[in-house]
Amino acid sequence: MDIKFSFKLIAKENKSRRGIIKTFHGQINTPAFMAVGTAGTVKAMTNSDIEKTGTEIILGNTYHLMLRPSDELIAKMKGLHNFMNWQKPILTDSGGFQVMSLAQIRKISDQGVEFSSHIDGKKYLLTPEKSIAIQHNLGSDITMIFDECVQYPATYEQAQKAMYRSIDWARRSKNAFIQRDGYALFGIVQGSTYQDLRKISAENLIKIGFDGYALGGLAVGEGQEEMFKVLDYAVDLLPDDKPRYLMGVGKPSDIVGAVMRGIDMFDCVIPTRSGRTGQAFVRSGVINIRNAKYREDSQPLDDKCQCYTCKNHSRSYLHHLVKSNEILASMLLTQHNLHYYQDLMRDIRNAIEQNTFSEFAKKFFDSNKNNELLLE
Amino acid sequence: MDIKFSFKLIAKENKSRRGIIKTFHGQINTPAFMAVGTAGTVKAMTNSDIEKTGTEIILGNTYHLMLRPSDELIAKMKGLHNFMNWQKPILTDSGGFQVMSLAQIRKISDQGVEFSSHIDGKKYLLTPEKSIAIQHNLGSDITMIFDECVQYPATYEQAQKAMYRSIDWARRSKNAFIQRDGYALFGIVQGSTYQDLRKISAENLIKIGFDGYALGGLAVGEGQEEMFKVLDYAVDLLPDDKPRYLMGVGKPSDIVGAVMRGIDMFDCVIPTRSGRTGQAFVRSGVINIRNAKYREDSQPLDDKCQCYTCKNHSRSYLHHLVKSNEILASMLLTQHNLHYYQDLMRDIRNAIEQNTFSEFAKKFFDSNKNNELLLE
Repeated sequence: MDIKFSFKLIAKENKSRRGIIKTFHGQINTPAFMAVGTAGTVKAMTNSDIEKTGTEIILGNTYHLMLRPSDELIAKMKGLHNFMNWQKPILTDSGGFQVMSLAQIRKISDQGVEFSSHIDGKKYLLTPEKSIAIQHNLGSDITMIFDECVQYPATYEQAQKAMYRSIDWARRSKNAFIQRDGYALFGIVQGSTYQDLRKISAENLIKIGFDGYALGGLAVGEGQEEMFKVLDYAVDLLPDDKPRYLMGVGKPSDIVGAVMRGIDMFDCVIPTRSGRTGQAFVRSGVINIRNAKYREDSQPLDDKCQCYTCKNHSRSYLHHLVKSNEILASMLLTQHNLHYYQDLMRDIRNAIEQNTFSEFAKKFFDSNKNNELLLE
Repeated sequence: MDIKFSFKLIAKENKSRRGIIKTFHGQINTPAFMAVGTAGTVKAMTNSDIEKTGTEIILGNTYHLMLRPSDELIAKMKGLHNFMNWQKPILTDSGGFQVMSLAQIRKISDQGVEFSSHIDGKKYLLTPEKSIAIQHNLGSDITMIFDECVQYPATYEQAQKAMYRSIDWARRSKNAFIQRDGYALFGIVQGSTYQDLRKISAENLIKIGFDGYALGGLAVGEGQEEMFKVLDYAVDLLPDDKPRYLMGVGKPSDIVGAVMRGIDMFDCVIPTRSGRTGQAFVRSGVINIRNAKYREDSQPLDDKCQCYTCKNHSRSYLHHLVKSNEILASMLLTQHNLHYYQDLMRDIRNAIEQNTFSEFAKKFFDSNKNNELLLE
């Protein structure tokens, strides 16, 4: 069995790419959407249900898992795949983003980040070496380097300082990474919305050499237009023969626009989190099932959808479950939303293969599919 | 197709009975455990998962459903079976018990019970006629008469008054019930722990004539010993050729003891509710998966169990999910517990068929299976 990590492009249309990533735990068709499995579970979903949506890779959060149940425990349980019994690929983030957004009392130095757990206040130090060791304990197919994420907006000086520090941390991450066949380490390009900083970051990361490249520091409040502007030049800075991952993105229209600009991988909490608040993605837009107009609506969420929820339940029933705070509401809506996202990715991949993606994207943006106002 | 409601006894061992109930929506093997689906959902379970446990009938709560989403809405959606898309039998209680335990500002008269909704304070009047009409709207295969439940302990006078009122309400319930092939109406014997009152109640109900008979006012704090004492005489008051239903019971040992005493049907929130609080039924007793000793326990909950949870996940993983308040914890533990209960019912049914139930029950009570202290 060839278990070398690899990325093969099988079709291209303008900047859009259709590829296959191979990892120790199996392959991933790109453009790919990774379901977020923060604490060792994609919230409200069994593994069996996740697989049914067509999800081929999930994301685990180093920050959450190091705090609870701890990477040492997960290593004892033979890694995250076995601990949660998800036997397909897993990518883990490095903890850098969550440390900045969730943890308390942070002290950032060239060494790393000191922080207190948001769960029990316990102090931790996260360094590039430590983050990589944790991800090794987790057994991630794709490990992310530890970087410093600046908030948006960031001044040029803030963005520059964090970007240079992140290059240093990327080098230390690479040195700390233990190579194993089928496992990969991805670099993360920083530089906020400053084109010259993105260029310096990308060039330095490519010099260090990674198995894939992510764009970090986007989808942090800059808006879709600004994000697309960055993608317009930043994607061209990356090598053609490695996967490109846009971290934390996004709404369906963000994904379609980013694929147009050459992105291969995505992750986002939107389908799962919005499922838990009563929002559902349907082919005509986004609906909030709490809305009184769904009370007597006997149709499924989306009559073209083949998911368990749409094949078995009405909007009226889902409206009732959400209003009654029933766990089943979160289960059924998450299942549907993740199915919607994976259907979208399948459509995108098919369109690129058939050289019809530009057309697909035009239709997508012209139509009401882009009615995502509820998500703002 | 014969869709007449019927009950056939296919085996007997002492007082224990093995039977088959036929209803409009299919058959139920007895002794049967009904999963509680309070508000049109067995909490944290999809219908598909409920069926996998071997559950053949679920219970819906008239009180909850009349308040939200309302029986009128459910009638518009073509009944509870279609509203929640559960196509097997459904029994509904009459609301009598919940009105007394959940609602506020109750005023009981011979006419019925006036109460305020625990959700929004809105006032309602529930009468025998109204309860039966609601259950007709829901489309229950088995409708329960509306009765007055007294609290435990009740004085003889309280129990007597409520019992006589309940006989009157049983008559009014029967008059209000619209007969349809395959649908049944059950009477409920009251009388608290007073043997003569139970006798009067049973005799009067039998005179009115019902398709099945329930014992109400038990499992309300009197303890197992006291409950078994009542069963020892109360079951003998009921006709042999009709199903006997012990309402709101119980722990596994309650069920085994009640089957010994001639009961055919049970319902209880224990397997589902305790699943949501981290308790799991296993062949060696009851465990609380929150306990620190399960943190590094890589075994399944119960290595003899064939449920999804036990085939896929470790105690260590479940411990983590419960500690992290993950929805998946409730899903997996509920699934396991309901599976455990239905396995128990299957074992009981097989034992009666093979004339080995006395032996089975003896072993059950001798062994640690009865270690249910956590549930107290």
